[in-house]
Amino acid sequence: MATALVGIVMGSDSDWPVVQKAADTLKSFGVPFEVRVMSAHRTPDLACEWATTAAQLGVKVVIAAAGLAAHLGGVLAAHTVLPVIGIPMPGGPLNGADALHSTVQMPSGIPVATVGIGNATNAALLAVQILGTADEGLRAKFAEYKATMRQKVIEANEKLNASL
Amino acid sequence: MATALVGIVMGSDSDWPVVQKAADTLKSFGVPFEVRVMSAHRTPDLACEWATTAAQLGVKVVIAAAGLAAHLGGVLAAHTVLPVIGIPMPGGPLNGADALHSTVQMPSGIPVATVGIGNATNAALLAVQILGTADEGLRAKFAEYKATMRQKVIEANEKLNASL
Amino acid sequence: MATALVGIVMGSDSDWPVVQKAADTLKSFGVPFEVRVMSAHRTPDLACEWATTAAQLGVKVVIAAAGLAAHLGGVLAAHTVLPVIGIPMPGGPLNGADALHSTVQMPSGIPVATVGIGNATNAALLAVQILGTADEGLRAKFAEYKATMRQKVIEANEKLNASL
Amino acid sequence: MATALVGIVMGSDSDWPVVQKAADTLKSFGVPFEVRVMSAHRTPDLACEWATTAAQLGVKVVIAAAGLAAHLGGVLAAHTVLPVIGIPMPGGPLNGADALHSTVQMPSGIPVATVGIGNATNAALLAVQILGTADEGLRAKFAEYKATMRQKVIEANEKLNASL
Amino acid sequence: MATALVGIVMGSDSDWPVVQKAADTLKSFGVPFEVRVMSAHRTPDLACEWATTAAQLGVKVVIAAAGLAAHLGGVLAAHTVLPVIGIPMPGGPLNGADALHSTVQMPSGIPVATVGIGNATNAALLAVQILGTADEGLRAKFAEYKATMRQKVIEANEKLNASL
Amino acid sequence: MATALVGIVMGSDSDWPVVQKAADTLKSFGVPFEVRVMSAHRTPDLACEWATTAAQLGVKVVIAAAGLAAHLGGVLAAHTVLPVIGIPMPGGPLNGADALHSTVQMPSGIPVATVGIGNATNAALLAVQILGTADEGLRAKFAEYKATMRQKVIEANEKLNASL
Amino acid sequence: MATALVGIVMGSDSDWPVVQKAADTLKSFGVPFEVRVMSAHRTPDLACEWATTAAQLGVKVVIAAAGLAAHLGGVLAAHTVLPVIGIPMPGGPLNGADALHSTVQMPSGIPVATVGIGNATNAALLAVQILGTADEGLRAKFAEYKATMRQKVIEANEKLNASL
Amino acid sequence: MATALVGIVMGSDSDWPVVQKAADTLKSFGVPFEVRVMSAHRTPDLACEWATTAAQLGVKVVIAAAGLAAHLGGVLAAHTVLPVIGIPMPGGPLNGADALHSTVQMPSGIPVATVGIGNATNAALLAVQILGTADEGLRAKFAEYKATMRQKVIEANEKLNASL
Repeated sequence: MATALVGIVMGSDSDWPVVQKAADTLKSFGVPFEVRVMSAHRTPDLACEWATTAAQLGVKVVIAAAGLAAHLGGVLAAHTVLPVIGIPMPGGPLNGADALHSTVQMPSGIPVATVGIGNATNAALLAVQILGTADEGLRAKFAEYKATMRQKVIEANEKLNASL
Repeated sequence: MATALVGIVMGSDSDWPVVQKAADTLKSFGVPFEVRVMSAHRTPDLACEWATTAAQLGVKVVIAAAGLAAHLGGVLAAHTVLPVIGIPMPGGPLNGADALHSTVQMPSGIPVATVGIGNATNAALLAVQILGTADEGLRAKFAEYKATMRQKVIEANEKLNASL
Repeated sequence: MATALVGIVMGSDSDWPVVQKAADTLKSFGVPFEVRVMSAHRTPDLACEWATTAAQLGVKVVIAAAGLAAHLGGVLAAHTVLPVIGIPMPGGPLNGADALHSTVQMPSGIPVATVGIGNATNAALLAVQILGTADEGLRAKFAEYKATMRQKVIEANEKLNASL
Repeated sequence: MATALVGIVMGSDSDWPVVQKAADTLKSFGVPFEVRVMSAHRTPDLACEWATTAAQLGVKVVIAAAGLAAHLGGVLAAHTVLPVIGIPMPGGPLNGADALHSTVQMPSGIPVATVGIGNATNAALLAVQILGTADEGLRAKFAEYKATMRQKVIEANEKLNASL
Repeated sequence: MATALVGIVMGSDSDWPVVQKAADTLKSFGVPFEVRVMSAHRTPDLACEWATTAAQLGVKVVIAAAGLAAHLGGVLAAHTVLPVIGIPMPGGPLNGADALHSTVQMPSGIPVATVGIGNATNAALLAVQILGTADEGLRAKFAEYKATMRQKVIEANEKLNASL
Repeated sequence: MATALVGIVMGSDSDWPVVQKAADTLKSFGVPFEVRVMSAHRTPDLACEWATTAAQLGVKVVIAAAGLAAHLGGVLAAHTVLPVIGIPMPGGPLNGADALHSTVQMPSGIPVATVGIGNATNAALLAVQILGTADEGLRAKFAEYKATMRQKVIEANEKLNASL
Repeated sequence: MATALVGIVMGSDSDWPVVQKAADTLKSFGVPFEVRVMSAHRTPDLACEWATTAAQLGVKVVIAAAGLAAHLGGVLAAHTVLPVIGIPMPGGPLNGADALHSTVQMPSGIPVATVGIGNATNAALLAVQILGTADEGLRAKFAEYKATMRQKVIEANEKLNASL
Repeated sequence: MATALVGIVMGSDSDWPVVQKAADTLKSFGVPFEVRVMSAHRTPDLACEWATTAAQLGVKVVIAAAGLAAHLGGVLAAHTVLPVIGIPMPGGPLNGADALHSTVQMPSGIPVATVGIGNATNAALLAVQILGTADEGLRAKFAEYKATMRQKVIEANEKLNASL
């Protein structure tokens, strides 16, 4: 199995139905990744240890998904020099407005690259773009991906107009 | 010097003008405390280590003040069995609405006892109340404190009415 | 029956399905508690009287659950020297954003230790932590509780990875 | 001195600069009133006692001004059958958004007639309207007040157009 | 049929399921009322005309229920000297947060007595309290209503404790 | 003097410092306009009458500026078939978040074309665009305006880079 | 087929169930329109090109519907001198609060005429009003539309009162 | 002069005082960059053209700063395969809450890596981390940067404690 280039970490396995889209997207780009359930609060030692060693193991980008007072992205970022992408999870009584604040409003010095609430697909695409800064092949694949999206919109337009 | 019963931790020394009220309040109750500048993101190892050992050193209550994506309370709580009181700090573009979400919306298992945004006095009083659960003297002092507050309101009422 | 150490108060019996988790959690820690339906607005005299005498009856920590313009925690805190933990209840058109403001933003002098919206489990755990400041046995149980949580995350991680 | 028909209660004398507009407005309508500094949390007994006896003393409408987790209106309403008008006070880190929630979102059974954040003038006018339901003279004065407001807008329009 | 003392106005008949509680509550107090569907925007002339003449027809209190950019209460208040109670309706994409702002934040001079989002019961109770300022019998009935509420809470408490 | 094509209405002359930018912008496009201070709540009859007759007097677009529970745009729209542009005014304790809700969330049937909070320039430009749908000359002027804006950005870019 | 006077653009065909009301409304007024699925982000070139040429093809008003970080209205407005009406779409974790901000808070120079969240009917009516500034017949139809709405409210009022 | 690896784009030169911190930070890491004032709405063609060609010119990461309905990041992202970092700018009546929504809530397919409101330093650090995924030297510099931050916190702690 290829060395994981992306580490996908989530605070709870209940996040998987949303986070799975990140995994599926990376798979479709052929980017090797690993998946971890690790909590900033319940297994802080494991999270810190993983973050501290991830770069040495070959991981180049971290994706962290957490909800409510979502500290996971920040905690991982505190222990690594790798770019950390944060997915604020929807759900809970405020449906992710809290997780967005907890993920994006990091203090100066420790950025977390935040994507939209629950937008695991965009987290994976951002990882692909980051890896693509040093990988022409991946960059080309991403250009193809954009072309496909473009084509789908064109077809949706045609289909809708045909139905009118 | 007496063993600190309360550990006051803040993410940055720029928080001190607000946090100082917690220190002053504890002093007025005769509760020994220590003050630490430790960041969940800039000195995570020190924060974790301190939290892990605080109970053994005699600390009974932790007060954590942080702003923006305020993770400090949660990170300390993850490493201790002591009650952790969180002060969401005002300031920044959202003036503490983000820090409130990041402090109070902790996942099940790791509570942070949150007080009002920037309300360092209440954080200290809550620490006094917690210590008071096992300290009749402290409880009596708190009752006196409440009596004094009551008296001040009565006097303010009289003064205002005298001025009308 | 043991003297209640924790008094769980809720504004309405319709809060019970959420609040029950606090009771269950205390039970699992062997902490004796009592449960009261008392409203800050509908039975203010009973709420005040209970709060005034709770400490003398042996209660050491109060948990107050209320929704909307959630005044219960503050009203109880006004009448006792005991620490009061507030659970802002979800529900209503703003789903607890109002209850959070009404619970946490207490004026200086009368703190309410606020946990996350609807997070009754954390309210109970905070009570356990508070009692644990003077009870080594309880503190040890809480450490075990954290160890169990940790183990569950590790197992969830293994199970998820096994399924990939 | 005439029996007060309106009781203006504020949580702190620091609220007076805003609340004074309510007093001035009532004065201009010739409505006798009393002013009290009483806190729902610092002098709960005095607040409850006052609210319980206000109706017997001739008060017909209560105005309550409080900020942050503004419980004063609700606490007074719990102890009286009189209509209670709540002024959510501006100030604090959320500038009254919290006080608005804490004042207006009262549970069924105990209404607080809420006016705009810091709008003490409207609180007084609402009291005048309420008293006017049984006082033709007051109602006529309010109609005059509206006529004057109307005239001022007309004059402002003329003045602005003259300056263009 | 008795002259209506309360005029209940709603912006759309789709508001009736919520507003009906106001009617039921008034009925239970024996307060005669009328119900109108009138829109600030779709039938502004009818709304203005009704508000202008309501006082002469014997109406003493107006209740206005509207959602979204809820202007109904303000528009009616602009055309009458009667106290106007506003019910911000829930529903729509912001679930009444918009209606709350549109109802409560009236400019100085034209108050709308705002109750909680969708809280039609409280609107009716506030009308009862207002009428009660000049009607001892109604005031006594409201005191009874509060006693019944109190009793229900006591019974709920007993029932819950019996079930534990 | 040319017949006004745009009617600029504001709820209070205190809005003029912001609204003046709309007037200045229209002037720069050579679009004749009139300015009115008229309040939805203080001079509702004048506002309704003006709105009812504006179209007959030659007005083609209405601009309405109001703050807080900003009803002016909606009230004018209720009485005219002309397009009404709403400027939610900043200021007040919520700084225009309330005015935005009160302006934009109009019920189906009565749109108010809302621009950004306090953005009087955009209100005027939108009026120009609307008039431009039937006025090639105005449309050309707007194209020029856009070209000038474009040029300014280019120059700002050059100036900034020259200073680096 | 008549030349389209209104161009309805949506970011995704999944917006159609909401946007269809705009199409239906325009149809009922006899206003010819075209419908396009074009994304500001997925087909930016097509969106820009369409916006650039729309005026020459006879389009007079643009309606743009988009959700989340809704850029479509702004992007189209950047490329045309035509008035652009923005519909912030509901849905997503914040249910359109984000789309409202992204649509209405345009910088000075490039207005987007924003209607309520998901209010496609109002978008179409605003287009009718805009076209009506130069089309007496359309203006008369809109007056009729308002008369019909008025009648429906009157009938709803009668029906509700008959059922009481 | 070295080929720019990072392109810093801002919507207006008035953003420079905030954005300058990004430039200063990149300079301190020795990362060559270019600075552009380009508006998504005022110079859309220039912005699109730049984004389309940036990758070919050697740019590897884009930083986009914009306020209000901040579309710049999304518009640039639509035209490039490079990772785009968005800085939601503070200022305006909502102080960046609108810009945060407009930047982070991008639809699936076109991520914008969002940092905290006005946090230009973090934008630059994220760019450094991204470049560091393929540049060991840069990664080492970032590790040094973190060590320096750590040291500063330790010194701040010592200084504060010395002053107590």
